[in-house]
Amino acid sequence: MEPSSGSCGVRPAVMSVAAVLPAGGSGERLGGATPKQFCALQGRPLVSYTVRAIERISWISDIIVVVSPENVETMKFIIEKYGHERVKIVKGGITRHRSIFNGLKVFAERESSNHLLQKPEVVIIHDAVRPFVEEDILSKVVVAAKKHGAAGAIRPLVSTVIASAADGCLDHSLERARYRASEMPQAFLFDIIYKAYQQCTDYDLDYGTECLDLALKYCRTNAKLVEGTADLWKVTYKRDLYAAESIIKDILSHQVYVITNVKEAVAQVGFLLHESLKSQIKVETISISLSKTDSHLQSIFSGQCYNFVCVNDKECAIQETEPLVEMLEKSDIPLLHPVVLILVHLDVSENISFSIGMEELTRIKKFAREVKKKNILVYGLLIQYK
Amino acid sequence: MEPSSGSCGVRPAVMSVAAVLPAGGSGERLGGATPKQFCALQGRPLVSYTVRAIERISWISDIIVVVSPENVETMKFIIEKYGHERVKIVKGGITRHRSIFNGLKVFAERESSNHLLQKPEVVIIHDAVRPFVEEDILSKVVVAAKKHGAAGAIRPLVSTVIASAADGCLDHSLERARYRASEMPQAFLFDIIYKAYQQCTDYDLDYGTECLDLALKYCRTNAKLVEGTADLWKVTYKRDLYAAESIIKDILSHQVYVITNVKEAVAQVGFLLHESLKSQIKVETISISLSKTDSHLQSIFSGQCYNFVCVNDKECAIQETEPLVEMLEKSDIPLLHPVVLILVHLDVSENISFSIGMEELTRIKKFAREVKKKNILVYGLLIQYK
Repeated sequence: MEPSSGSCGVRPAVMSVAAVLPAGGSGERLGGATPKQFCALQGRPLVSYTVRAIERISWISDIIVVVSPENVETMKFIIEKYGHERVKIVKGGITRHRSIFNGLKVFAERESSNHLLQKPEVVIIHDAVRPFVEEDILSKVVVAAKKHGAAGAIRPLVSTVIASAADGCLDHSLERARYRASEMPQAFLFDIIYKAYQQCTDYDLDYGTECLDLALKYCRTNAKLVEGTADLWKVTYKRDLYAAESIIKDILSHQVYVITNVKEAVAQVGFLLHESLKSQIKVETISISLSKTDSHLQSIFSGQCYNFVCVNDKECAIQETEPLVEMLEKSDIPLLHPVVLILVHLDVSENISFSIGMEELTRIKKFAREVKKKNILVYGLLIQYK
Repeated sequence: MEPSSGSCGVRPAVMSVAAVLPAGGSGERLGGATPKQFCALQGRPLVSYTVRAIERISWISDIIVVVSPENVETMKFIIEKYGHERVKIVKGGITRHRSIFNGLKVFAERESSNHLLQKPEVVIIHDAVRPFVEEDILSKVVVAAKKHGAAGAIRPLVSTVIASAADGCLDHSLERARYRASEMPQAFLFDIIYKAYQQCTDYDLDYGTECLDLALKYCRTNAKLVEGTADLWKVTYKRDLYAAESIIKDILSHQVYVITNVKEAVAQVGFLLHESLKSQIKVETISISLSKTDSHLQSIFSGQCYNFVCVNDKECAIQETEPLVEMLEKSDIPLLHPVVLILVHLDVSENISFSIGMEELTRIKKFAREVKKKNILVYGLLIQYK
């Protein structure tokens, strides 16, 4: 997916920003053999959705994914398959804090990396198992971290929190309004969080989980707390995988790609279509010729879009569409879900007769019957445009 | 569903137990118009799953569902449609605590109810939006409440809990291991929780949420805390509805009803089938004749089972099965999900020829083709048993 496709929020004031995604967890709370970050949702691993959510934001430069040594090859494969960019894999430690520390070292210690990356001013830390993070909250924590040194997303508590006494009975319950759940993303001035990790004890590295806490303890930095949205939740239990998969299906079914070739008249129709659809559905418009080798189209397919509108003004819409159908067929997309392909054939010639239009539609009908067997549903629309 | 079908745990020592299910919430965190307890999962409202989870436990006598006044009719309809038993509807107050108090009054105050119910020794309080509660945890909190006066299920915290300072910055974070999330079910000696509600202030009734806290504050009862399982989670956000629906589908697809008529030989096969299947799938066996008016079968259908094995020894298996198919058709079940019906025809006659068996199978094939249009998949198995 191209770097900027999802960027619509406000870019934080000029500063360099990188992200570290700890993805080394074993997923023991999930109760399965596969760590949750590698579980497939609609055929694609969870971690890939999270990486995509980060990489589509153009103002985040490097993305460090920290995985346990045995999963390095898996992660390499995922990056290759889904065309992730600006991503570097780092081997994790035995605990979450040690993994994050390893991720940070890539920007600071020449010995831990073959090519030292440019040290960012602010670093985002975000869990690989929180795939629905939006640019808005990332931008907010980065801006707050620049000002306060550290910042983190918080959410209201869902349950009352209680303290138990030594006998296993209730000691007291906390007043819910005074407390918050600490979530991700968090962001830090790089120098602050790196110093905190350098100074903290082995006990912190082994038993702590909260980065904000290290910044407070070792750098006296009181993190700014930023209210996040409900989508920030962490995939923890099996039920969360179910929920994440349903949300992904929902997002995909409300998303359409409008593909136009580059002629002006067609581009205009594409634009009008975009304007009239965008209140109901997420529309991405690309002007592109449907050649087989186009890497941009390939990356859209790996992003699993299920709805396409192709606008073109060539004489034979089908020939133009065949490469697209072929590419769709080769991807796994129509295996899991029917793909809808609406062909808008824009006829701008002066001297076309009605019967030629009918012929074209008949060809489209035949073509549609054929590809329906492949779970690709083609609908044709002929517009005579004079 | 019959009262005892799900009871397999240890019944708490002889005592009377009732349950109050607050179901008055508006579901504002869900972001939809329908309160979450009335949202349909696989076509059935969430609250109905929770009521079923409670009512299948035979040692719970009365079940009080507290709903807001505008939802009384909806709740009546649900009770009727899904054949819930031992359930009484009570009108809730404007807050959760006021609703629970109203529910408890049914056992204590003649004026609040037309017919006062028998006061239980122990009362369970459980959220209507926690549908996956198991008998084991209910039994544990009841036994603990009998001993300690109060008890509640707890779970480890998923996120670190933090306190914020007045300036919106981190003040301190709590050591996760020392704290727990307070969940449901909870149980109380009736006299304790009722006294607590009678004595507590309007502020408590309006702003408090935690029953354990009232028992501590007004009756000096330190509730026993019981570690619960992950299924106790509360349906709070839209993603939780997605998760709940997927879990319900999963449960249903791993559940089969074996229906046998009452002859001895058949019952034996039914028993053997049960024994050999039960390690892989949840099996319920019922000995019943497939008459149209059987209310037990009706209640199974409203419980949305998708897999049936019918064992019979009648000459014509199809005639025997037609009423079942008709009942399935009338229910909404095959609309949402294909229903699998395996007909095991047990032939115990001495003088049957192979050709008659083939004829029977041919008839089943034709029948199967017919009902497949209704999304009911019939498979036939003829066993000659001498």
